[in-house]
Amino acid sequence: MTLELGKIMRAEIEEVPTVFQRIKDHSAEMAEQISSLDLASIDSVILVGRGTSDNAALYLKYLIETKIGIPCGLASPSVVTVYGTKLRYKNVLVIALSQSGQSPDLVGYCAAAREGGAIVLAMTNDPESPLAKTSHCHLYLHAGPEKAVAATKSYSAELLVSKILVAKWKGEGVEFDQIIAQAELGLLQMPFIQTVSESFDYSEGLTTMGRGFAYANAHEAALKIQETVKIPVASFSSADYLHGPISSLHSNSRVLFLAPAGVAQSSMAPTVARIRDITKHIYWIGSGFPRENGETYLGGSVGLPETDAVIADSVLLQSFALFLAISSGKDPDAPIGLAKVTKTL
Amino acid sequence: MTLELGKIMRAEIEEVPTVFQRIKDHSAEMAEQISSLDLASIDSVILVGRGTSDNAALYLKYLIETKIGIPCGLASPSVVTVYGTKLRYKNVLVIALSQSGQSPDLVGYCAAAREGGAIVLAMTNDPESPLAKTSHCHLYLHAGPEKAVAATKSYSAELLVSKILVAKWKGEGVEFDQIIAQAELGLLQMPFIQTVSESFDYSEGLTTMGRGFAYANAHEAALKIQETVKIPVASFSSADYLHGPISSLHSNSRVLFLAPAGVAQSSMAPTVARIRDITKHIYWIGSGFPRENGETYLGGSVGLPETDAVIADSVLLQSFALFLAISSGKDPDAPIGLAKVTKTL
Repeated sequence: MTLELGKIMRAEIEEVPTVFQRIKDHSAEMAEQISSLDLASIDSVILVGRGTSDNAALYLKYLIETKIGIPCGLASPSVVTVYGTKLRYKNVLVIALSQSGQSPDLVGYCAAAREGGAIVLAMTNDPESPLAKTSHCHLYLHAGPEKAVAATKSYSAELLVSKILVAKWKGEGVEFDQIIAQAELGLLQMPFIQTVSESFDYSEGLTTMGRGFAYANAHEAALKIQETVKIPVASFSSADYLHGPISSLHSNSRVLFLAPAGVAQSSMAPTVARIRDITKHIYWIGSGFPRENGETYLGGSVGLPETDAVIADSVLLQSFALFLAISSGKDPDAPIGLAKVTKTL
Repeated sequence: MTLELGKIMRAEIEEVPTVFQRIKDHSAEMAEQISSLDLASIDSVILVGRGTSDNAALYLKYLIETKIGIPCGLASPSVVTVYGTKLRYKNVLVIALSQSGQSPDLVGYCAAAREGGAIVLAMTNDPESPLAKTSHCHLYLHAGPEKAVAATKSYSAELLVSKILVAKWKGEGVEFDQIIAQAELGLLQMPFIQTVSESFDYSEGLTTMGRGFAYANAHEAALKIQETVKIPVASFSSADYLHGPISSLHSNSRVLFLAPAGVAQSSMAPTVARIRDITKHIYWIGSGFPRENGETYLGGSVGLPETDAVIADSVLLQSFALFLAISSGKDPDAPIGLAKVTKTL
């Protein structure tokens, strides 16, 4: 019997459009839950998550900062779980993101935030999880059971539910059908991404990069490849990159840019130009930036606003990690040394 | 004429205790500036910095979260500079950290935050800088001119001024003399760190790790080595590490732990144990965690609370980066491809 590497992870990536459809089908119910919260009283937001969910939080952070315009930060749960700080959270919304809803540090942090006066909202894939029970409002990810250790469809679901939350807060709609259609198109790129992966040489270093809304996908691409291929991958905001990290780049380095449709090109241009002077090995996910001859385009949604392109493009980075792992003979369904549910204390 | 590699950077690291003394000499004046702010009205804090200053901000974030107990996050300046968001910053303190005070994106962000109702405080090394002028309150770093491209003494100064700010806010004192004495002792480790650096093999990967207050130094160690040695270095919170990144670790990986005196050992223990199972090549900065035979101790302050040990130990990570660069024949005073003042737009 031949083991089919990555069978589960592949099936879960391919399920993303179906997950999006389920979320759409429950979106009216979610909107009702969201409107039950006193969002008008909120002056700042704190997000909390670990690993992949922490990356989804980067997208939600940026959405809140740009659409709502209030301060939004990422929590350090150890403030509570290690240092026992009593929180004073006045007019604060805490949003916890977690596939399993099990990690004791997130639960402990959210309980302390509630005690300190915060409104707590959780997004998980298990309405019966401790985290869901600790929150004032639980938004169900509807991703279905996720069995591969490397989270994929739950990440994409977190992005879409984040979009729903902020759209509702802002009084805007969500173009579900376009996002679903573009995610489906993204999946059609799998054979091409597989071919690219088979000759992809990461031995001299791989860096992923994105800015703004795409920063989340850049981080998630790095984490996913790291988890499944077991190589170190650095990820950066293209804004920070020129402040130091660029100095370790050389002519054989590989760089993956996340440039969704609608990205502010001028904000990436100086970093892209500097990197092109150093290495020719440039890969793109996202249709939002002009590519040069010899650079590799893995795919990207078109015709969507940037906030939505990031959601649809998530299947591309997941597929890239999947096929890089398979090409290197690793089984991305069960990376050695990783547990599906990590319970940080 | 022989070029003495790293001459400027070394002199600037060696100047840290003197910088600390200057800050101490001006601390009463700083305390007065801080008390002129209406801190009682503040319900949340947003920090903003780039590169090394962004790492110092991680320390300040943790201090505010644990000592003041209110939400504290890191800003995404591009929310303003790229997306033109109008900010609604009610009862918000914005703290900008920057050696030069020149970066237009920080200035633009702080101006927008002020416009949106925030109190803006800046820490820079130039009272005449645009960032200093944009703030309601400017705390001078007193680091003196910093000429090496890799920032060192200004980072240490940002840590100490952060400590002063939060101590004043909380109504506590600062044990300057102990911090200064321990930083001086740290400098005495230079010959040993040099010896370790000469045989240090980073060819199979280097990861730095710390949690809580030490997370800042872990990030800064990675950045400093990356800038000066020009190799990719990953840095993690030991809490996040088990959620994925650990899977790229192997038996020849090098791991540098930042474990200051007073660190909560139990919070690091699970990660340290897992890493010890994978690699024996473990290095320590900080006296706060029990080491095993064969692991290398680069030094660390003793007898200080964790918040202060992190400040004093900053000279150790700087020295390590300095000597790693020199050992690899690179000039850390002028890393290729980096500018001293990076103006992100």
